[in-house]
Amino acid sequence: MNARLSTETTELAIAELKTLLGARASTGLSVLDLHAGDESHHDRHRPQIVVSPETTAEVAEIVKIAARYRVPITAFGAGSGLEGGAIPIQGGISLDTARLDQIIEVRADDMIARVGAGVRRLDLNRVLRDTGLFFPVDPGANASIGGMTSTGASGTNAVRYGVMRENVLGLTVVTADGNIVKTGSLARKSSSGYDLTRLFVGAEGTLGIVTEIAIRLHPIPDAISAHAGFATLAGAVNAVIDIKRAGLAIGRVELLDQPLVGVINRRGTWQLPALPTLFFEFHGTQSEIAALSDTIAAIVSEHGGTPLQWPGPGEGTVRLWETRRDVLSWARGERPGSTSWPSDVCVPISALADVILETRADVDRSGLTAYIVGHVGDGNFHCVFKYLPEEAEQVAEVSGRIVERAIAAGGTASGEHGIGLGKRKYLEAEHGAEAVALMRSLKVALDPLGILNPGKVVPDPEPAH
Amino acid sequence: MNARLSTETTELAIAELKTLLGARASTGLSVLDLHAGDESHHDRHRPQIVVSPETTAEVAEIVKIAARYRVPITAFGAGSGLEGGAIPIQGGISLDTARLDQIIEVRADDMIARVGAGVRRLDLNRVLRDTGLFFPVDPGANASIGGMTSTGASGTNAVRYGVMRENVLGLTVVTADGNIVKTGSLARKSSSGYDLTRLFVGAEGTLGIVTEIAIRLHPIPDAISAHAGFATLAGAVNAVIDIKRAGLAIGRVELLDQPLVGVINRRGTWQLPALPTLFFEFHGTQSEIAALSDTIAAIVSEHGGTPLQWPGPGEGTVRLWETRRDVLSWARGERPGSTSWPSDVCVPISALADVILETRADVDRSGLTAYIVGHVGDGNFHCVFKYLPEEAEQVAEVSGRIVERAIAAGGTASGEHGIGLGKRKYLEAEHGAEAVALMRSLKVALDPLGILNPGKVVPDPEPAH
Repeated sequence: MNARLSTETTELAIAELKTLLGARASTGLSVLDLHAGDESHHDRHRPQIVVSPETTAEVAEIVKIAARYRVPITAFGAGSGLEGGAIPIQGGISLDTARLDQIIEVRADDMIARVGAGVRRLDLNRVLRDTGLFFPVDPGANASIGGMTSTGASGTNAVRYGVMRENVLGLTVVTADGNIVKTGSLARKSSSGYDLTRLFVGAEGTLGIVTEIAIRLHPIPDAISAHAGFATLAGAVNAVIDIKRAGLAIGRVELLDQPLVGVINRRGTWQLPALPTLFFEFHGTQSEIAALSDTIAAIVSEHGGTPLQWPGPGEGTVRLWETRRDVLSWARGERPGSTSWPSDVCVPISALADVILETRADVDRSGLTAYIVGHVGDGNFHCVFKYLPEEAEQVAEVSGRIVERAIAAGGTASGEHGIGLGKRKYLEAEHGAEAVALMRSLKVALDPLGILNPGKVVPDPEPAH
Repeated sequence: MNARLSTETTELAIAELKTLLGARASTGLSVLDLHAGDESHHDRHRPQIVVSPETTAEVAEIVKIAARYRVPITAFGAGSGLEGGAIPIQGGISLDTARLDQIIEVRADDMIARVGAGVRRLDLNRVLRDTGLFFPVDPGANASIGGMTSTGASGTNAVRYGVMRENVLGLTVVTADGNIVKTGSLARKSSSGYDLTRLFVGAEGTLGIVTEIAIRLHPIPDAISAHAGFATLAGAVNAVIDIKRAGLAIGRVELLDQPLVGVINRRGTWQLPALPTLFFEFHGTQSEIAALSDTIAAIVSEHGGTPLQWPGPGEGTVRLWETRRDVLSWARGERPGSTSWPSDVCVPISALADVILETRADVDRSGLTAYIVGHVGDGNFHCVFKYLPEEAEQVAEVSGRIVERAIAAGGTASGEHGIGLGKRKYLEAEHGAEAVALMRSLKVALDPLGILNPGKVVPDPEPAH
C-alpha cells in the first residue's frame, strides 16, 4: 500500500527524527509553511516536519526512518520550482537540502566540480570565477544544483552547453531503502553498465534522493550580444534555424514576442522597435564574431529582421540580459494581484513557428494576458500567463491546449520545468501507455513502499505487496 | 530460473520462428557461425537460430516466442563490437538487425534523423551528405546505429559532439514481454518523466531490444587538421588540457604513442618525427583557425611540442586521418598471427598522463607488444595489445592492471566499448556493490525471465520466481 499517514506512526517518525537531528528537525509552523510551496501556481501543502541533514549519511538515516514508518519524504531545494515538484502533497517529511551546501571539490584541470545538493548555482559560479570556469546551466532562478538535477533543468544557454542531463557526470543518491549509491565516475565519458545517473536526473526525488552531484564545468567564453526585431514571429524563428544550420556558435538565443517587447518599452530602461525580437549571445572573440557578423546580418535580413544592434561588451549587454531576466516580473507588475502560470513545451524546431503562432492566436482569442518567451534554439518556449483568480480555469484550458499542440507536433509537455504536479496528466499522451507502464515499473522496483515524493511524475504505483 | 535451453523447448521455439519468418529464420551452420562472434578476442559461441526481422512488430513477435519458451535472445548489429556484447554465450536466438535498415525520416530543419537499428553509420552519412548535415559519432568501424546505441559508442570526435548518450533523442524498444515502447520525443530537450532513452543506451540489449533510433544531426563543419610531436608523452597530454581550457574548438585530438609512430614510419606513406604525437582537427573557417593558430602553437611549444604541421585541406588531411584509422591494423600486420586486445579505459583528464605513463611502463616491463592511442580530449585511451596465443594470459594480467589503475584514478573500465563479457568482473570495483545491486534490480524489473542477452553487463539476476 502507499505510504499512509496514521497520526501515530507519523508521531513516532517525528520523535525519531528529532532525536537524530535535534534542532535540525523542526515542526514549527513557520518552517513548515516555508516548505509548503514553490514558485508555481500549484496549491500549497504543509509537511509534518522539516529536516535539514548535513551529510549523506544523515540523509540515509532519515530515509530509513521514513521507510520504517512509511512516511512520505520529499526533497526541497531552493523552492524555485515551477511545477510543484517539491510540494509534499501527502505531507510527511520535507528534506531541506540547504545544509548540504559544501563545494566538495573543484578539479579545474578536469573541468569538474563536486557539490552538495544544496549548493546554489550563483554561489558556485562565484567560487569558480577565479578558475576561469563556470557551470553554464542557467534556469534563471538561483536554484540549487540538487533541484536542477532532479527537475532536469536547462535554460537560456542549453542551446550551447546542453541541459543538466548532459552536464551531470555522477551522483550520490540515497535510495528508498536508505542505501547510499554512487553513480557515474569522474571520467568525462563511460559505457560501463546501466546509466544510473540519467535515471535519477529529472526523477524529482521519486526514485532516490540526490545528495551530491559531480558536474561538468566549461571555460568562461568571450561573448558578444546582439538583438534584432522581426516583421513576423515566424521570421524570427526561421532566422534561428538558419543560423544554427550555418553552424554558428550561438551561446543564447531568446525570443520575446511583441506584447513582451511592449512591456520592455513601458517598464524598461530602453526602447525597442515594437516587434517580435531575438536576443542573441554569440561566443567567440570580437574578431571572430566580426568575421561572422555579415553572415548573421544577412540571415536576419532575409527573414525580415531589422539590422542587428550590437550593444557592445559593456553596459548595453548587461542591460540586455538583465531585461530578459526581469521582463516577466515587470509584466506581472503591470497586472496587480496576478499569478504567473508558465507553460513549458518543447517541439521540433521546424514546428516551432507554427506552434507559437497558433498559441499566440489562441491566447488572443481567449482575452487572457500572456507573453511568449522562447529558448528558440532548442524549440522550447514558455507562454507565461499573468492571471487573476477568476481566470484560473480559462488559463488551465488554454494551457492544456498548448501542451496538446506540442505533443501533436512530436514535442514534449515539459522542456525544462519537469512533470511535478502539473504535467502528470499528459504523460501518457506524450509517451504512450507502454512507456508510462515501464516508468511505473521502475518506480515500483526502486521505491516499493511508495515513500519517495509520492504523487509526482508517474501516477502512484500499484502496491508491491 | 534463468533461461535454460532444453532441447525440446528450443526446438518448439525454432519451429515457431520459422513459421513466422520463413527464410528469414535460419539454422544453417554458416549463418550461425557468422553470428557467433564479433571483432573481439572473446570466445565465439553459436546461437541455435538467426532471425532477421524487417519490422518492429516482427521483433515483438520474436521476443514473445522467446519469452514463451524462455529461450535467450541476443541482438546482433554489424558484428563490430569489441567486448563480446553480441555473442550469444547461452545460445538461443541471435536477432540480426541488418534488415531493420530503413532511414525512416530525415528532418533537415530539425537536424534529426530516425533510422532502423540496422542502418550503418557510413551509409547514413552518405545519404545525409546533400543536406549539409552528418551524424558525428565515429567509432571507426562501420557499425550499425543500433549497435552503437546499445554499446554507448563514441570515438574520435566525441570531444566535440558528445557520445551516443547525448546524440540519441528517442528510441523504439521491444521489451522482454514483447511490448513496443517509444521513448523520448523529437524535441531537442525534455524533462518529461523518467529518462527511458538513456536507460536503454549502453544496456547492450539486456533490458530491451532497440529497433529504431532518433538521432541528432550536426552541420558538416569546416575543419582543418594539424599534427605535432612532443618530447614527452606527458607534454602531449598537458597540451590538450590547456587547449581545452582555452575554449578552442577541437573537433578531434588523438594521441599516438612513440611505438605507434614507429609503425607509421615503417608502414605508412609519410615520415613523422619518432615522438609521441598528437593529431588535431580544429573546427572553424580557415580564417578563424588562422586567428587561433598562434595560440595553439604557443601552447604546443610550451609543452615541448614541435612546430605544428598543417597538412592543408586536401590530400594531406585525408592521409592523416586514414593513417589514424589504419595504423592499428598495420601494427597487427607487423606481428603475423597476432590477435588484438584493446583496453578501453577513461580517466579524469588530469590523471591521464600518469595513467598512460604507468601503463606504458607496465607494458614495457612485460615484454608484450602494445600501442597506445587516445581520444585524449575525453581522457579515453586504448592500450592495444597485438598478442600471440601463448601471451594471452599475460595480456589479461596487464590489461586487468590498466582497468584497476583507471578505476583507482576515478575513471571507468569502459570509455566506449561497453561491458559485454570482458568488463563484467570490474563492475563492482568501479561502481560499488550498491550501484551494481541497483542495476541488477533494474534488470529483474525489466527482464524477469532473464531472456535478454543473458550473461552480459551485470551478473545474471536471481530469479524473480
